[in-house]
Amino acid sequence: MTADLLYATVAAVGVLDGAAMEAARRRQRELTKPEGALGRLETLSIQLAGITGTLCPPLKPRVVIVCAGDHGVTLEGVSAFPSAVTPQMVLNFLHGGAAINVLARQMDATVTVLDVGVAADLPDHPALRKARVRAGTGNLRREPAMERDEARSAVEAGIAAGQAAIAAGARVLVTGDMGIGNTTPSAAIAAVVTRRPPADVTGTGTGLAPDGWRHKVAVIEDALALHRPDPGDSLDVLAKVGGLEIGAIAGVILAGAAARVPVVIDGVISAAGAAIAVLLCPACKPFLVAGHRSVEPGHGALLAHLDLCPLVDLDLRLGEGTGAVLALPFLDAAVATLNEMATFGDAQVAGKIA
Amino acid sequence: MTADLLYATVAAVGVLDGAAMEAARRRQRELTKPEGALGRLETLSIQLAGITGTLCPPLKPRVVIVCAGDHGVTLEGVSAFPSAVTPQMVLNFLHGGAAINVLARQMDATVTVLDVGVAADLPDHPALRKARVRAGTGNLRREPAMERDEARSAVEAGIAAGQAAIAAGARVLVTGDMGIGNTTPSAAIAAVVTRRPPADVTGTGTGLAPDGWRHKVAVIEDALALHRPDPGDSLDVLAKVGGLEIGAIAGVILAGAAARVPVVIDGVISAAGAAIAVLLCPACKPFLVAGHRSVEPGHGALLAHLDLCPLVDLDLRLGEGTGAVLALPFLDAAVATLNEMATFGDAQVAGKIA
Repeated sequence: MTADLLYATVAAVGVLDGAAMEAARRRQRELTKPEGALGRLETLSIQLAGITGTLCPPLKPRVVIVCAGDHGVTLEGVSAFPSAVTPQMVLNFLHGGAAINVLARQMDATVTVLDVGVAADLPDHPALRKARVRAGTGNLRREPAMERDEARSAVEAGIAAGQAAIAAGARVLVTGDMGIGNTTPSAAIAAVVTRRPPADVTGTGTGLAPDGWRHKVAVIEDALALHRPDPGDSLDVLAKVGGLEIGAIAGVILAGAAARVPVVIDGVISAAGAAIAVLLCPACKPFLVAGHRSVEPGHGALLAHLDLCPLVDLDLRLGEGTGAVLALPFLDAAVATLNEMATFGDAQVAGKIA
Repeated sequence: MTADLLYATVAAVGVLDGAAMEAARRRQRELTKPEGALGRLETLSIQLAGITGTLCPPLKPRVVIVCAGDHGVTLEGVSAFPSAVTPQMVLNFLHGGAAINVLARQMDATVTVLDVGVAADLPDHPALRKARVRAGTGNLRREPAMERDEARSAVEAGIAAGQAAIAAGARVLVTGDMGIGNTTPSAAIAAVVTRRPPADVTGTGTGLAPDGWRHKVAVIEDALALHRPDPGDSLDVLAKVGGLEIGAIAGVILAGAAARVPVVIDGVISAAGAAIAVLLCPACKPFLVAGHRSVEPGHGALLAHLDLCPLVDLDLRLGEGTGAVLALPFLDAAVATLNEMATFGDAQVAGKIA
């Protein structure tokens, strides 16, 4: 990892390929269906053409990068599950037993775990990339979650992981997360970047009771009052009230955008990472595909802030990348319909009445 | 086809298997995720257990039955495309070039076409089931769409097609439609069964301009005033203001329900068929899975009337079964997560804090 990895990656992010998009739009009009009748599959096919520069981009292999880290703020009792679950779930990912493993197998994706900040020893494993920046964040109610250079290192760890996946052949990247307590920094980031009060963007995470929810909101309010993160300075926000895996997700997004590889993002934690990535590099936004809408209120706020409309809406609130991999068949369907359908001319089907 | 096929099929429809559903619910609570975190995938896994009586139902082979018929009401200028497109699109289906073919290949489903009322000669083809009741409906603005015994025959043609698919191994049925003009009878059925004014449930179909839409509403108003279909008598509604393929879709649904095979329904035409099926046999409703929400306003009204919540919402308005096949990966995902995820005990993951 060079000292310039972040800036070099940001500088490499280009714009969508307008000619490929226009060719995709033209072809959509010739296919045997009323214009626009495939709805969001059509706009998705056009976006994917713009990202990749071709009407028929390969969408496999695809890799879920589950970014993992722990959170000092769990000391405040903001999560229904104990921190020990973070490494336990990482092991579950490595053994193939978690929801993301099952869904990734179903959707023909592979799962890798990126440890940027788990507060426990983890074994060596071919699906685990070890790039720990520190063993969990500080308790953001009392201290910054991390130092600014640690925030930058977390983003760069995500960039390196994304680049490695792409170098190994990945044609789609999928972001996922694991980190007990991480809906708290995600809600804090959502409050900062959307300029909304914490109560509007804070949810119950893995299952807090109403009292627990009110306490979580108060913790975030305290943190924002203490640190006053600068909403225009991505690394300041990430360092003061973010998370290591959230920084890594931002890095994965930047790596994908720089390489013109579509990045499908998951729920509220991934959207917080996307908000950080877009603050670092606004040009990366068109390379994002929103996989799903979770039930966390901060997710909706972040998606609106990022102008993203999710593909899947099934009331999930699990993270790990689960909502994003569920959207992969829609990417496949968008490219397949664009390329494999007959045109009105081919099929001798009459067009619209004058 | 025996004279008693309809009644025999209705009588064979049972109830969901409560023991299998309870076993699925119990297992969902043991899997390594917060309770309920997989959202609608969880409820879907429970429904599929109830339909099939097993926690791990096979979901392949799956067959899309595209029910095709023509509509005399096209004489009134209610469609943006000419009636000739119905047989042209049937040929496109048989040649594998339509959106439904591409999406079905993607989702590992096969496509068969059931002709219950196309007003043109069609060739023999292994994927075409010929069961034409009449060559298109009458113009429902001036005359009943069909006779009552023809309505019954259309439903029975759908039952027979569904039974044949199941006998050949199908473990999921998917309903689709082709019939230029068929959003008009679908809107008429929606108005009758939901007791809403035609303007509330009529859309622009394949692409009517606003003038065309107002005319379409007037045509439906005229038809309802002329025929006064009895909202409690399914065959009366179907005969007076329905369509042959809509009746066939109702039949496919009944065949699936009677055999405890899940039926995934598509857009507004399939929902009109489902409304007829549920009027014929209220017990078939729990066997339905709503594939998607189309942009046609009548579809939302019918889904609400049927208490169905669709899985996919991508602004499609194509029919053919396209929105329904896009939901198939979610059925697979629901069953796979229920069966393949580790439990908290297996994976030694800690549970919720007291």
